[in-house]
Amino acid sequence: MRDLIRKKRDGGALTREEIDRWIRGVTDGSVPDYQSSALLMAITLKGMDRQETVALAEAMLHSGRVLSWAGLDRPTVDKHSTGGVGDKISIALAPWVAACGATVPMISGRGLGHTGGTLDKLSAIPGFRYRLSVEEFTAQLKRIGVVMAGQTSELAPADDKLYALRDVTATVECRPLIVASILSKKLASGTAGVVFDVKCGGGAFMRSREDAASLGRDLVDVTRLLGRDARALVTAMDQPLGHAIGNASEVAEAMAVLRGEGPADVVELAGLLGSAMLVLSGVAHERHEADARLERALSNGEALRRAESMIQAQGGDPRVAADPARLPHAPVETRVLAEREGFVASIDARALGELLVAMGGGRRVQEDTVDPAVGIRLVRKVGEKVAAGDPLALIEAHRDAPEFAEVARRAYTIADRAPAPAPILIEDLGR
Amino acid sequence: MRDLIRKKRDGGALTREEIDRWIRGVTDGSVPDYQSSALLMAITLKGMDRQETVALAEAMLHSGRVLSWAGLDRPTVDKHSTGGVGDKISIALAPWVAACGATVPMISGRGLGHTGGTLDKLSAIPGFRYRLSVEEFTAQLKRIGVVMAGQTSELAPADDKLYALRDVTATVECRPLIVASILSKKLASGTAGVVFDVKCGGGAFMRSREDAASLGRDLVDVTRLLGRDARALVTAMDQPLGHAIGNASEVAEAMAVLRGEGPADVVELAGLLGSAMLVLSGVAHERHEADARLERALSNGEALRRAESMIQAQGGDPRVAADPARLPHAPVETRVLAEREGFVASIDARALGELLVAMGGGRRVQEDTVDPAVGIRLVRKVGEKVAAGDPLALIEAHRDAPEFAEVARRAYTIADRAPAPAPILIEDLGR
Repeated sequence: MRDLIRKKRDGGALTREEIDRWIRGVTDGSVPDYQSSALLMAITLKGMDRQETVALAEAMLHSGRVLSWAGLDRPTVDKHSTGGVGDKISIALAPWVAACGATVPMISGRGLGHTGGTLDKLSAIPGFRYRLSVEEFTAQLKRIGVVMAGQTSELAPADDKLYALRDVTATVECRPLIVASILSKKLASGTAGVVFDVKCGGGAFMRSREDAASLGRDLVDVTRLLGRDARALVTAMDQPLGHAIGNASEVAEAMAVLRGEGPADVVELAGLLGSAMLVLSGVAHERHEADARLERALSNGEALRRAESMIQAQGGDPRVAADPARLPHAPVETRVLAEREGFVASIDARALGELLVAMGGGRRVQEDTVDPAVGIRLVRKVGEKVAAGDPLALIEAHRDAPEFAEVARRAYTIADRAPAPAPILIEDLGR
Repeated sequence: MRDLIRKKRDGGALTREEIDRWIRGVTDGSVPDYQSSALLMAITLKGMDRQETVALAEAMLHSGRVLSWAGLDRPTVDKHSTGGVGDKISIALAPWVAACGATVPMISGRGLGHTGGTLDKLSAIPGFRYRLSVEEFTAQLKRIGVVMAGQTSELAPADDKLYALRDVTATVECRPLIVASILSKKLASGTAGVVFDVKCGGGAFMRSREDAASLGRDLVDVTRLLGRDARALVTAMDQPLGHAIGNASEVAEAMAVLRGEGPADVVELAGLLGSAMLVLSGVAHERHEADARLERALSNGEALRRAESMIQAQGGDPRVAADPARLPHAPVETRVLAEREGFVASIDARALGELLVAMGGGRRVQEDTVDPAVGIRLVRKVGEKVAAGDPLALIEAHRDAPEFAEVARRAYTIADRAPAPAPILIEDLGR
């Protein structure tokens, strides 16, 4: 290990054998953390080339079980988002795409920091279980065509260990480590293809279009070098997605999408990603065909029914899909009022994501518990006209919360003129 | 710690408070090794400026006891060598300089790799103890004016921990870490001044004159910024020093110096360093006065008697000073013969240092035990004329060892012409 660390320290490229040896040692515990952390820092500062990144992702992927759906009669496809605020897309998308004829073995994560996690949102559904055994996962996927489950220690265990180490050694922000970590977990589910939703803007990890596009290209290229198919969309994450921020209310908004009542931006982005998934998996030949299938699954109620089946199969109350009042909700609303008239010029997604954490609806550290009921409802979104005293948003809490309302008010910028409309889709990579 | 690691990762300079916090955490165990090793790698790749290096050395120095000799009537001075092959200088020098009127509280190390360690050599003396309590150290220093002891966990304990971590994380070769490590241990002995013997050449850690001079300047500058006085000599380490390589035989050669019978290069280097120590400590005003004192201490036998007193005080048999036959010795000599006639053009010190390790006389890893009796005797040194079949060297082992003789033969280069004489002293820094 010392020679391997020295090689990377001096800017050398590690061979596949060296990377395999390291990751085997991480997995079986024979390489001590202090050596891995020195190597992680050397990688962070000296980088890894494409070949090394592929070898690392592959070694981490094969550090545990890799599921296989070779016997399935319908193609598998998954979506991965790099994380945003109000991003409930997966919850609508997975059953919707399954209803169109693809199989979606989705492995999701819990939230940390200002971005929420799909598993925390699903956990707001009474009874819902995301910790599934591989056997339960397999049986449900065959029966219903969609599973939304948590990462298990059986899948890519080396990633769990390295992620924990990166978190405490300031080596999280390193491109090849990010790519290898995402892909090792994502591809362990056995999906044949992945559509990446690379978020870009003030509420995302990637602030600039260039950074986001470059990450998207890396994810697509490395996925393909690992023998799976991929496509990436760079999408806007400046204002939050939709009107709901908060675990239960985001589930409700995702279900509204499946009932044909979703907010425009959520419906648009889910449609773009769903269409990409259907084309990538070969269920549809091109965009228009995919869009038509998506439209049909919505109008005939099949998407909603698929969501209900999935929720029921995973122990949850399926009635929440049609009746959001069955979800937990915080009883006290505090109004966030506009101080002046004008147009909403921007809504700081990061500030609202952090506000939800402060309200108990997210996690500062892994051990935090999450309150599913609290939330922030955006009454006005970017571009809308407001008068002084109009409600911009509502704080949904267990008590009157003027201090949270004040934070939310500052997240809104009101201007004299309406801003130029900003598209959701910024760039489509890897078509 | 994570923010501190991130700062260094991004090339920032750590404050004195941040460095103090880290080293306190290293010392009390509250900073886990995996965070220290990530930081060590970031320091190795991003460097530390002079101010950070001083703060690190000071924090490590004060991680344990710092001895003080304020009440002593004679000035303290010490020597530190960066490590060479056949370097038995300290063993002659410490009692010699003490005999001239300085006080020498010398903390030495054990050998590792191709360079030997003073403590391993002294351990060849029957009964000699180098593990002294601070009380024993103090009492002996006051009584005899010289102590040669081992590093204890009471002195600069943070250095022990960090050195062990650097050893396994490829962060040994980092200038500010090297400087802080050397100084924290060296200055904990309470010496008011240090003369650094910075070895340069094929048998040294610093191969080039530029690297060695730069290390020497760093050591002098940082020592002065820590409030002590310092001087550095850059000296040649291409061929081994003297005729003896091996623990017991190097003690014998050091004692020969004190009897006025030492090999020219060892006598010259010990004289240069001794003179620098006497001037640095103020015992002598200038070089000529120092040389005269050294000469007198040799001719009147005071230097040898001081060595005997020191050995006796530390439990060793003082008769070895006059009678080297009392030291352990390996019974079987294998001759290393010249294959051609000519002049010895070079002797590869590193190869012979590694040969001694292979013979059991050095350490590959810290846990190795060292055989004091085995050695390599250099019959011919660089510049000397040889005929084909002449002995170049003798392998001193417990059995006939033609394979070791062959390694030693290859360490010699014989040429048609005598090489230009190379001086021992390459550069005198920080006068």
